[in-house]
Amino acid sequence: MKVLVLGGDGFCGWPCAVNLSDAGHDVVIVDNLSRRKIDIDLGVESLTPIATIHDRLRAWEETGGRPIHFVALDIAQDYDLLLGLLRSERPSAVVHFAEQRAAPYSMKSSATKRYTVDNNVNGTHNLLCAIVESGLDIHIVHLGTMGVYGYGSHRGATIPEGYLTVEVPQPDGSRFQEKILHPTDPGSVYHMTKTLDQLLFFYYNKNDSIRVTDLHQGIVWGTNTDLTDRDPRLVNRFDYDGDYGTVLNRFLMQAAIGYPLTVHGTGGQTRAFIHIRDSVKCVELAINNPPAAGEKVRIYNQMTESHKVKDLAEKVAAVTGAKLNHLPNPRKEAIENDLIVDNRCLIELGLKPTTLDEGLLGEVVDVARRWADRCDRSRIPCVSTWTHSQAAALQPVI
Amino acid sequence: MKVLVLGGDGFCGWPCAVNLSDAGHDVVIVDNLSRRKIDIDLGVESLTPIATIHDRLRAWEETGGRPIHFVALDIAQDYDLLLGLLRSERPSAVVHFAEQRAAPYSMKSSATKRYTVDNNVNGTHNLLCAIVESGLDIHIVHLGTMGVYGYGSHRGATIPEGYLTVEVPQPDGSRFQEKILHPTDPGSVYHMTKTLDQLLFFYYNKNDSIRVTDLHQGIVWGTNTDLTDRDPRLVNRFDYDGDYGTVLNRFLMQAAIGYPLTVHGTGGQTRAFIHIRDSVKCVELAINNPPAAGEKVRIYNQMTESHKVKDLAEKVAAVTGAKLNHLPNPRKEAIENDLIVDNRCLIELGLKPTTLDEGLLGEVVDVARRWADRCDRSRIPCVSTWTHSQAAALQPVI
Repeated sequence: MKVLVLGGDGFCGWPCAVNLSDAGHDVVIVDNLSRRKIDIDLGVESLTPIATIHDRLRAWEETGGRPIHFVALDIAQDYDLLLGLLRSERPSAVVHFAEQRAAPYSMKSSATKRYTVDNNVNGTHNLLCAIVESGLDIHIVHLGTMGVYGYGSHRGATIPEGYLTVEVPQPDGSRFQEKILHPTDPGSVYHMTKTLDQLLFFYYNKNDSIRVTDLHQGIVWGTNTDLTDRDPRLVNRFDYDGDYGTVLNRFLMQAAIGYPLTVHGTGGQTRAFIHIRDSVKCVELAINNPPAAGEKVRIYNQMTESHKVKDLAEKVAAVTGAKLNHLPNPRKEAIENDLIVDNRCLIELGLKPTTLDEGLLGEVVDVARRWADRCDRSRIPCVSTWTHSQAAALQPVI
Repeated sequence: MKVLVLGGDGFCGWPCAVNLSDAGHDVVIVDNLSRRKIDIDLGVESLTPIATIHDRLRAWEETGGRPIHFVALDIAQDYDLLLGLLRSERPSAVVHFAEQRAAPYSMKSSATKRYTVDNNVNGTHNLLCAIVESGLDIHIVHLGTMGVYGYGSHRGATIPEGYLTVEVPQPDGSRFQEKILHPTDPGSVYHMTKTLDQLLFFYYNKNDSIRVTDLHQGIVWGTNTDLTDRDPRLVNRFDYDGDYGTVLNRFLMQAAIGYPLTVHGTGGQTRAFIHIRDSVKCVELAINNPPAAGEKVRIYNQMTESHKVKDLAEKVAAVTGAKLNHLPNPRKEAIENDLIVDNRCLIELGLKPTTLDEGLLGEVVDVARRWADRCDRSRIPCVSTWTHSQAAALQPVI
């Protein structure tokens, strides 16, 4: 089927696009290349030497891949071009990765907070509007985040897949049972935008019967898939800096270069994880199993295991001999939390998880050690803080 | 105290600004005059002949009012100017009316949907960002809508003031009690933006301790307050067109000119109402009773009575002898609903409601009949539809 991948040049978007192409879909990547441009602004680079999108696509074809077309377009800005593209391509599905996706970057300054909200909300809303205006029946597969649920509570119950059944006590003493969108409790401006996306999807699904699968993804680790491993020009990006690096990939790279693992706060924060290989597989499963006409928004928890941050650090230390460094937490979050997640939907559709224990050492050797000399150590510390007072606390004492 | 009124030239904003000024506050109106400009685009005018903002402010001073300063600024676009204004004025409170506020206008086209989302979300977010960046402790009083709760359900229970206590069944058979933000079910893109605003307030209150009072207002009726009645140049706007006219004011004007009252659908839709005099009083009460430091977002239901639309039409018909005209419903909404609303918070703070029964005839005589010759009958029909299929159904058959 014809699939547009919005944000198909990014960390999750690129391996997803080639996977869908390899699975026989006719893929068009739509991207404004903002992720590469933010690297320029921040003065950082992917640890892996990534090729331009043009070289990537040439390499994909040269190694036997079905041609992937690339359209340079900003979905948050170029509404008319987006609508024209939907009308000319008439895709069956659109995978929507085209959002600013780093929590620390979203908290860096008023400018990055505002960019994140403006870009993410208008991008998602433009897509919904354009689908309605096109009159086409297009399934949206959106990358959400487990972070919409919040990590603050200790209720000990399993986090369901998007919807929570609650009972509302009535004046007569009876209880009214209702299935509601799970209450949200985002931990950053970035996470907040994904809670806004949820309400946009809810409304357009209700009013215009737009079919949506919202994938609430855990923290992604790993770098390449079998397909991006085919050619050096297909290599995926690997972020290790304090803004865009995800916690486990940062630990792996730190271990590879002998930098003490940066554990912020107690390390008691429990988070959900998924390997990039599984992430792209989940998107494929979502594409192949669209909601029926008239079905409400489908929400899957796209994660395979949960761990406390300090346990991850200890796991990486055990494999590599790295030391741990406990640092102040730049985020405003619960010191410690439990996290039990229901992920049956994707498992039942056929996902076979890559476990941390089997994949960890391979990542260290293959990627982090191989490119260790490209690391700029000065960009490892997390400098984006959640509040003014934390910023003051992180200043070096003179 | 120093109070900025964002959107202080609009239908609710203007009488609110003069009321706060009369109550002894030092008021600055901030407005981009977008409401007047939308009138130009739509080719409609307020039934009442409103003066320019400059003439309004001159008249206010000439009739003994404390001077009100006016700043022309678009809060959704001019972030740096907004931040500069907060820093120079150092207000204790900001009343935030600066949003596109008509549901039919928000559903008119992709352009108006996109404008409504872009303007409302970025306006609210810019205000929150600027307050954080300023480091000032400023209380936000925001005009939300009863429409965030949705009117679709028939659960028969009272709608609480913003927060709903629910019980979550646990695996061991026990129930975990939680107070959550009331689940949302907006009926238009406009209403949806107010559900997005709620999440923005929730997050910035949690992360940055911003103090917020969110007033979930019913449908406003009436036109003038004692203060805007002081001088013809102070007169408030009265919208009767299909996009911006609110249901009861439309009925009053239709009765005044002998146009059959436009009841859409069954008329069984129950909505919450409040007179403009009570609306401005509520804002004053909210300003004078700010949340304590660290308190979560305060939410009040700003309404005084609920009625079915057809009952309102019959009430107006009984007073004026008007006829009823049943038309197709351009909205996608429940045919009929109940609505029982808790509004104790504002009543306990001292609100004395203006009832429909006592105020209705006065409005017809004073405003609707007086300016009846300014009405353009061709702008009365509601032409903005919620979906393509409704638009097709409303087309005249040739």
